[in-house]
Amino acid sequence: MSRRGVGANRSPVTHHLTEEMQKKFHYTVGPYSEPVLSIEPGDRVIVDTRDAFEGKIQKETDIPSKILELPYLNPQNGPILVAGAEKGDVLAVHIEEMLPRGDDPHGICCMIPFFGGLSSTDYTASLHEPLPEIVRRIKVDRNHVYWSKKHTLAYKPHIGTLSVSPEIDSINALVPDNHGGNMDIPDIGPGSITYLPIRSPGARLFIGDAHACQGDGEVCGTAVEFSSTTTIRVDLIKNWKIEWPRMENETSVMGIGSARPLEDATRIAYRELIRWLVEDYQFDQWDAYMMLSQCGKVRLGNFVDPKYSVGAMLDKSYLSA
Amino acid sequence: MSRRGVGANRSPVTHHLTEEMQKKFHYTVGPYSEPVLSIEPGDRVIVDTRDAFEGKIQKETDIPSKILELPYLNPQNGPILVAGAEKGDVLAVHIEEMLPRGDDPHGICCMIPFFGGLSSTDYTASLHEPLPEIVRRIKVDRNHVYWSKKHTLAYKPHIGTLSVSPEIDSINALVPDNHGGNMDIPDIGPGSITYLPIRSPGARLFIGDAHACQGDGEVCGTAVEFSSTTTIRVDLIKNWKIEWPRMENETSVMGIGSARPLEDATRIAYRELIRWLVEDYQFDQWDAYMMLSQCGKVRLGNFVDPKYSVGAMLDKSYLSA
Amino acid sequence: MSRRGVGANRSPVTHHLTEEMQKKFHYTVGPYSEPVLSIEPGDRVIVDTRDAFEGKIQKETDIPSKILELPYLNPQNGPILVAGAEKGDVLAVHIEEMLPRGDDPHGICCMIPFFGGLSSTDYTASLHEPLPEIVRRIKVDRNHVYWSKKHTLAYKPHIGTLSVSPEIDSINALVPDNHGGNMDIPDIGPGSITYLPIRSPGARLFIGDAHACQGDGEVCGTAVEFSSTTTIRVDLIKNWKIEWPRMENETSVMGIGSARPLEDATRIAYRELIRWLVEDYQFDQWDAYMMLSQCGKVRLGNFVDPKYSVGAMLDKSYLSA
Amino acid sequence: MSRRGVGANRSPVTHHLTEEMQKKFHYTVGPYSEPVLSIEPGDRVIVDTRDAFEGKIQKETDIPSKILELPYLNPQNGPILVAGAEKGDVLAVHIEEMLPRGDDPHGICCMIPFFGGLSSTDYTASLHEPLPEIVRRIKVDRNHVYWSKKHTLAYKPHIGTLSVSPEIDSINALVPDNHGGNMDIPDIGPGSITYLPIRSPGARLFIGDAHACQGDGEVCGTAVEFSSTTTIRVDLIKNWKIEWPRMENETSVMGIGSARPLEDATRIAYRELIRWLVEDYQFDQWDAYMMLSQCGKVRLGNFVDPKYSVGAMLDKSYLSA
Repeated sequence: MSRRGVGANRSPVTHHLTEEMQKKFHYTVGPYSEPVLSIEPGDRVIVDTRDAFEGKIQKETDIPSKILELPYLNPQNGPILVAGAEKGDVLAVHIEEMLPRGDDPHGICCMIPFFGGLSSTDYTASLHEPLPEIVRRIKVDRNHVYWSKKHTLAYKPHIGTLSVSPEIDSINALVPDNHGGNMDIPDIGPGSITYLPIRSPGARLFIGDAHACQGDGEVCGTAVEFSSTTTIRVDLIKNWKIEWPRMENETSVMGIGSARPLEDATRIAYRELIRWLVEDYQFDQWDAYMMLSQCGKVRLGNFVDPKYSVGAMLDKSYLSA
Repeated sequence: MSRRGVGANRSPVTHHLTEEMQKKFHYTVGPYSEPVLSIEPGDRVIVDTRDAFEGKIQKETDIPSKILELPYLNPQNGPILVAGAEKGDVLAVHIEEMLPRGDDPHGICCMIPFFGGLSSTDYTASLHEPLPEIVRRIKVDRNHVYWSKKHTLAYKPHIGTLSVSPEIDSINALVPDNHGGNMDIPDIGPGSITYLPIRSPGARLFIGDAHACQGDGEVCGTAVEFSSTTTIRVDLIKNWKIEWPRMENETSVMGIGSARPLEDATRIAYRELIRWLVEDYQFDQWDAYMMLSQCGKVRLGNFVDPKYSVGAMLDKSYLSA
Repeated sequence: MSRRGVGANRSPVTHHLTEEMQKKFHYTVGPYSEPVLSIEPGDRVIVDTRDAFEGKIQKETDIPSKILELPYLNPQNGPILVAGAEKGDVLAVHIEEMLPRGDDPHGICCMIPFFGGLSSTDYTASLHEPLPEIVRRIKVDRNHVYWSKKHTLAYKPHIGTLSVSPEIDSINALVPDNHGGNMDIPDIGPGSITYLPIRSPGARLFIGDAHACQGDGEVCGTAVEFSSTTTIRVDLIKNWKIEWPRMENETSVMGIGSARPLEDATRIAYRELIRWLVEDYQFDQWDAYMMLSQCGKVRLGNFVDPKYSVGAMLDKSYLSA
Repeated sequence: MSRRGVGANRSPVTHHLTEEMQKKFHYTVGPYSEPVLSIEPGDRVIVDTRDAFEGKIQKETDIPSKILELPYLNPQNGPILVAGAEKGDVLAVHIEEMLPRGDDPHGICCMIPFFGGLSSTDYTASLHEPLPEIVRRIKVDRNHVYWSKKHTLAYKPHIGTLSVSPEIDSINALVPDNHGGNMDIPDIGPGSITYLPIRSPGARLFIGDAHACQGDGEVCGTAVEFSSTTTIRVDLIKNWKIEWPRMENETSVMGIGSARPLEDATRIAYRELIRWLVEDYQFDQWDAYMMLSQCGKVRLGNFVDPKYSVGAMLDKSYLSA
């Protein structure tokens, strides 16, 4: 884990946040809910996440608009309190492992009326009739996602929604912003460390919305939404001032922006990455800007929800000169 | 007030929500705060509002970025509970009067770094240096806003931020959305009735952000922000299902949308107006759409905050055939 | 007309640009077409404009998608050469009068598949089926637009598309940009003077797309599109460097921006208005910015075409201190 | 090359479009310029392209705003006429090889005032001062781009601007749209075939804007802009109706959208890809939509110019069931 973490050299305690411990899942991310767990920096937590529909959609004949009830979507585990975390610090969430949960592991993908990238929505309003409602139930194992008779996809699990609490807002779990939230960035899977700017005491970590796989943009509005057993290790970095989430994995560093329109999310992401290069990697600001114009990479996360998410990346080989 | 209101024929009780009663102002709008007042439908409330900077900026030599502390901006009075209000009803807020408050009534307008319509912002991110910080302190009376030696503006007071609580989210007072919020629509002044879709028990009305006057878009980011004594009458309309705020005054009906990009706010506003015409005024949907293309009016509210607000209007003369 | 115009004190010659003289109407605005008329600054031109569908839609049973052929829409009269006009000058187009043309004056409004503010479009792409196609044929006279049995609208004619030629681009007549184009701003009617930045020799004025009336945004995609006899007086202002169109009428001055998303059009419009106030009306830039935040007005022009148009206005009473 | 091409089985003739043959480079893409070359489907053309600044920026002390003159940027070779090409056909442009040109091969990257992804621009207007102007001159060879003492980048050449002529518009070489144009998609390099929808007789191919490498989004506004010797093979596919450019290379198929805001470009790209999968690869529309939500990839091309470009991709392994 991060060298800078308070818990980097501690022997981690492992906690298991079961459904029973969680009891009530959360549909907003904020400072007003009761913590379900308190941990020390460096601790490991095994989290039993529910799928984004909270298991309510089971069959391909189910009709999402009759079953799902807004705003009770995208159930989140947490909040988890981290000892010593204060506004102005950073929470480092290392995803160690993600496994399908249950006896008959499967995921659900569906088209929901007025939701999705190629649909009118509540915000991109129109007078069109909704697209059809379709549910797909997809078998999943630790290697594959059995999409259809024709197509088997690789199992590439990741966490769609990862947050610390805003200072005073309590934000819907469907919305990404500078606290993290529903970013739907497929890189936030095993091996990744996501850095979130802490804005409330104890950080108040929320986690949920596991995907067995997801394409860039999650274009139809849903991924292969599944219930997972996700193992994270959580560390605390004191006095690291960041404005937006950042991520790193074996190969890349990434700044993450969430906003509409999509160019604003992209602007935020690249600016956050530049700030990182300048502060921690001895780049001159203008050199970073011009060099990213030659070798930066962009990941489109979610572009279907109330705000869109973009990651701007640089290969780590460029960090050491 | 609205014929349909539960309290239309009641003798209104008048309440005075003083600063003392309010004690703690709110910077988010949601279901988690303690009510300061409970009223019956049809009651009148005299509200002592604070200016958007909570009185912290007093002199033209003050430096906003040193004084203002995010997210503690745009203080809201409330929440006010309305007896009998339930999810699926509508709150009707009739603004009866708005007067400047205090011995030396004045307003503050200022330019805040990375805030405003012609500035890079936290969302429309860039590498530019901020625009200069400038504070204007403007004398206000019941007829005029004394902008400068050269220019005196008319006193056209209105409420910038008017909200009911979302069902579970607690939304920053700077953000407008389908709960109302920081819409900054200058028509929401004396004589107007704003209809807000109730989503939580008691409606939980929040009000604040009085402006002595404001242009379309509030382009520099702030209006003539002043502390007011605002008199509202609040009624409850049962079983009126609306998705977004609506407004009417002597001359017009208006649907209000808040979103980014700005075209989405406009789309929502026009669609909401069409819905109103179809449901209550015997318009055919397509006729309403095509006729608004000939005589609809658009008001740009706020286009400087995290979401933009637009009102789409029709003159009332077209409502009675 | 403008005091500054080269032709302000000339006795104007009146030209009549009939359909016969025009022969071939234009569907792009650029430097590659043959001029149909050459005039002196200050001259008057009576222009016989065709409606935006070039008269092809005549009956309410006509089906637009079978009749209209892209990109041959929105026929433009011109180009008209103005003697002495050079890059870096400004063309002032004063609309003096607009009358319905023909024996049975009428306008056409229609809904066209994947076109309009509350529809998916070629750019805001989706998988929705198109909205229905509906045609309205509306009787028009010099005072009224007879929309329906129930609703008679006021005759408020204006020019939807007014352009000078770009320097080297030839831009579709449906697109507004810094050359003018399809701005659909209802203020550009009798009594208005529109200022267009000249970028090619002779200015090459194009004009067309007359509307008998139009609401803000032209939300369904079309106004009451009619063939008109439009009288303009055209003057030339030397060495006035403007970047975007501007307009003035009896009451207001306006900067006009055209772009997507709509907030960018608004930003351009307000910045152009500020530039005007600073250059010609002794405003300090920051004072102009802050004062427009209190008394600026915004007109939404077209928000249905490939680019959106916005006018930012100030009442002329504020120009003289 | 494409099996479907008219010229697939012809022995290709090789043409060399030298600077001498080209004489005058073009800054718009349209039907009004003189062809420089006529070829048969399947022919090979070696094109000597100029860099986007037409060689005017040579030294790191050069000041772009003093040297560059809008709209004379991004010089294009062509138009090349292709025998038999008609509206409704598709031009297939196979890039075979791209080599640096000249004795001292190098590229130029620069920051230009009010241009770039993290700058205010002519469209995203503001009152900020411009960012600094900086020029980088970068040595290039067939394997590397020598960015700085610290950082050497891989040589990954591609064509930034590739177009057929619109039917009647003549569009600035800086603008991408459904004719192709300045898409700045780094995948359009050696090994790729770009499919462009033909809208005018002979197709009228334009090509230019070679980059020695470029990151996603070309965030500072310019890539490593260099003069190249680019070898293409051009084929004609009759009666293939596509609306937007498409691309394929060894691993992927891609739909390309160009629009603002960026979400609209993304919507177009994914819809175009879905159309391709349905028409040519036996996908059901909804299955394609939902499956791309699991394994689609998105490439951000240009997000700095008047319109933004996005490619939506699918790995070819999914095409054969």
